[in-house]
Order: sequence, then structure tokens, then C-alpha cells
Amino acid sequence: MAEGVVEIGGDIVTAALLVIGDEILSGRTKDKNIGYVAEYLTNIGIDLKEVRVVPDEAAEIVAALNALRLRYTYVFTTGGIGPTHDDITAESVAAAFGVPIGYDSRAVEIMTARVAQTGGVMNEARMRMARIPVGAELVHNKISAAPGFWIGNVIVMAGVPHIMQAMLEFVTPKLRTGARMLSETIRADCREGDIGTELGEIARQHPDVVIGSYPFIDEKIGGNTHIVVRSRDPQRLAGAKAAVEAMLGRVKAGLAVGKI
Amino acid sequence: MAEGVVEIGGDIVTAALLVIGDEILSGRTKDKNIGYVAEYLTNIGIDLKEVRVVPDEAAEIVAALNALRLRYTYVFTTGGIGPTHDDITAESVAAAFGVPIGYDSRAVEIMTARVAQTGGVMNEARMRMARIPVGAELVHNKISAAPGFWIGNVIVMAGVPHIMQAMLEFVTPKLRTGARMLSETIRADCREGDIGTELGEIARQHPDVVIGSYPFIDEKIGGNTHIVVRSRDPQRLAGAKAAVEAMLGRVKAGLAVGKI
Repeated sequence: MAEGVVEIGGDIVTAALLVIGDEILSGRTKDKNIGYVAEYLTNIGIDLKEVRVVPDEAAEIVAALNALRLRYTYVFTTGGIGPTHDDITAESVAAAFGVPIGYDSRAVEIMTARVAQTGGVMNEARMRMARIPVGAELVHNKISAAPGFWIGNVIVMAGVPHIMQAMLEFVTPKLRTGARMLSETIRADCREGDIGTELGEIARQHPDVVIGSYPFIDEKIGGNTHIVVRSRDPQRLAGAKAAVEAMLGRVKAGLAVGKI
Repeated sequence: MAEGVVEIGGDIVTAALLVIGDEILSGRTKDKNIGYVAEYLTNIGIDLKEVRVVPDEAAEIVAALNALRLRYTYVFTTGGIGPTHDDITAESVAAAFGVPIGYDSRAVEIMTARVAQTGGVMNEARMRMARIPVGAELVHNKISAAPGFWIGNVIVMAGVPHIMQAMLEFVTPKLRTGARMLSETIRADCREGDIGTELGEIARQHPDVVIGSYPFIDEKIGGNTHIVVRSRDPQRLAGAKAAVEAMLGRVKAGLAVGKI
């Protein structure tokens, strides 16, 4: 990231997302959390820099977590905090931090109250959901009651999307956020290959603006392109956007008379 | 993975998927490839063991690729092989393998023919799509014509889902595949917390069968659970499935009379 952007736009806060679950890797369950978390974090001024999906295997979870938590401001995890034997996220996070895990009295209280309310019994399986690494803060959700937790810079959330979303909302006021990455999308109305060279030139002239090019199929004209310019600085963003629009005008005029 | 499964079921072939693109991490584009590739590989007898999403930054792509290609039979990548400046996958893969990259005469021919057909010109941007690491084989697709490639154990594909799918189909006959992981889903008709302890006992008794438990909301009964048993060996799969069904019968009889 260019130094200048940091100075102008303020702090940069980064994050990784660790998705835990055999069911995602087998294709049985199609992940709905990556896109949601990516958009959510971008909107509150946290840059998602990496995502990993790992199976329900303690060694894999620990290794990924330790790699990610040293690199990024925050690591969010989804999945593996339910009541069954394949829910091994809490103990894996404890292992990664080298702290014990035990029944957390706050979590036991929450679970006991909810189980009484729903007419179940507080059995061994449900007690598993009250196992929290020592030193962690609870992450509440009103939907299932079973808490996630926050330890160090790691925030452990459920895998079920609407519960995960409630947990993300719960922690948001406590998250450090940075200058938001601003974004503008320009519809090129021509094909990527028609403008690639010129767009690359603009990218070189605007090193502190991130410029992306995304082809899509347009029902009317066929091959079309979205150009996305991103910066933390509104003026630089506007400058790059204007340069792209001027370039598009020139190229399309050339295309129209068959010169390109 | 249990040794016994290897002996009975035949070879195990593993893979990782590396998704390359700022647009996935910003949330602008919602990935549609992870779930597709996961399901596809599972069906042809390749175990997807890890997924990573990294930004359009060469150092990140190289580091992830080198970590993954040493661990798994295959690494599939999606994204970053288009004609614009932000498409840096081909040069990053070349860097990871320490080989040069240049205009590939086979790819130039394909691109030139397609561009002639569609009435464009073979400009610098489109020539970018003919840059292929030396020693790679091309991965064809009839949709966009622009090829992906295969070098070492790394298969580089487009990010646009229908083009990626065509490329995956193209390489499939050449992939080494292993014994397929078989899977059965059992609908529990009770909540995860009601059966977690008993299910864990079955998992311990069937160490070479992978048993997963996935809660879902059922319109009729509310909290419900899918239990997924997986094995490469049909008999072991059937044994575990029968054990789960018998357990469900016992637990639900107990629930019905209020004993659990």
C-alpha cells in the first residue's frame, strides 16, 4: 500500500477470514460468509487481505490461525462452534494461543437459560458450547444464544450465516477501524481487450489508486467491462476516475471510426 | 486421514484452490468458484483440502502458490489471466516456478484467430493473454478462447465462472483421480444438541468414517440437523449410517417420552 495513502487517509486496519469446515471443502455447503464479511469489513474501514478455508482438523486450524493472526490486525473465523464432536474450533483456538479451555461460567449461564426456555436439557453436547478459551471475551448473539468469543486479535463466530452476521454486528462497535477504502465503478461499454493498454497507463500514472478491470457479458452489447477505481482519498479517486472516463471517450471514438 | 481408508479405497489425490482477486476480498464480486470447484473435485475423486483467497499482489500470489503446491497433488487457481494491468497471475506463477514468461506461439495463434473473428485488433492488451510461463501446457476453452495453462502441478484458470468451468472440464481427463469420497446425508429430525453426545460416541467407534453434523432451520419443526457420513469404503459408510439411524431412533423415542 502506498505510504501517501496512509498519511492522508489515516490508519489502515487489516483482517483475514478463516472459514473452518469440511462441508465447505467437500462442496456440500456453499459458503455464504466470505462475500458478506468482505463487503461488511470494507464498509466499516477494515481491509480484508486474505481468506483461507481449512477442514475440521485441529493441526490445520492452529497452523492457519497462527500464520494469520501474526500478519493482520484481526482474524475472523467462521464455523465449528456447535455442540457436536466435529466442532473443534474453540479448542483449536485455545491451542493456537497456548491457553487452557474450560467451561466458562458466563457461557454456561447463557446456555442454561436458553435451554430451559426451549425445553431441552443441558446435556454434555450443549455444555460443549460453553467451552471457551481462558481469557476470551464472549461474543453474544440473540438468535441461537450460544456465544462466539474474542481472544487476542481473533474473533470466533458461528458458521450459520444469520448467526455469524449477528456476531459480526455485536463486535463492530469494539473494532478498531481505519480510513475506508472508497470505490467507484465505471461501466466501460467496450471490451477489456479494447482498453487494457490505455488503462494500464492510467494505473501507472495513479500509483496510489487501485484500478481493477472486470469483464462481464452485457445482454445488449455482448462483452463489456466494469472498471473499479479505489482509494482512501476522495480527490485522488476523482482524479483517477476522470482519467478513466476521458480515456474511454477517446478509445470509443477511435473504435467508432474503426481506427482501433 | 486413516491409513486403512487408503489401503481399501485406493489412492488419495488432494488439491488446493487459490482464488486471486481484489474484487473478492473487497466484496464487490461474490465468489462463485469455490463451491463449484469443491463439489466438482469431490465428484471426480480429488479431495479439496484448502482454499485461499489472495489479492492481486505478486508477492502474495507467489507465497501462497509455493506453500500450496508443495503440500497438495494439485493447485487450481482462478482469476487474473485477462488483458489488463491487474491480471498478474501468469507472471506470478512463472516467478513461483522460477521460469521465464513470454509470448507463447500457440496462444498467440489462438488469440489472433479469435480476435479476427470478433472484429477486434490484436493489440498489446490482448497479447498479454498470450503470455505463458515457459514449459506450461495450454488449457483451452471455447468460450473466450484465451487459454489458461498447466505447469508442474498448478492449473491456472480464468475467474469468470463459465470460462473456469470449461477449463476445469478440459483438464479433467488428464487429472489423476483417487478413490471417491462417498457421502450419505441423514436428516435427524431433532436438534444438534439433542444428539451431540451420542453422535460423538459413534464417531469414536468409526474412526475411519468422517461424520459431520450441520444444523438447519426446518419450517415444520424448527431446529433440525443433517448428519453427513463420509468414507471411501461403501461398507464402512453403510455401517456408520446404520449406527447413526439406530441412535436417532433411540434418542427420539427418549425425547418423545420426555426422558432426554
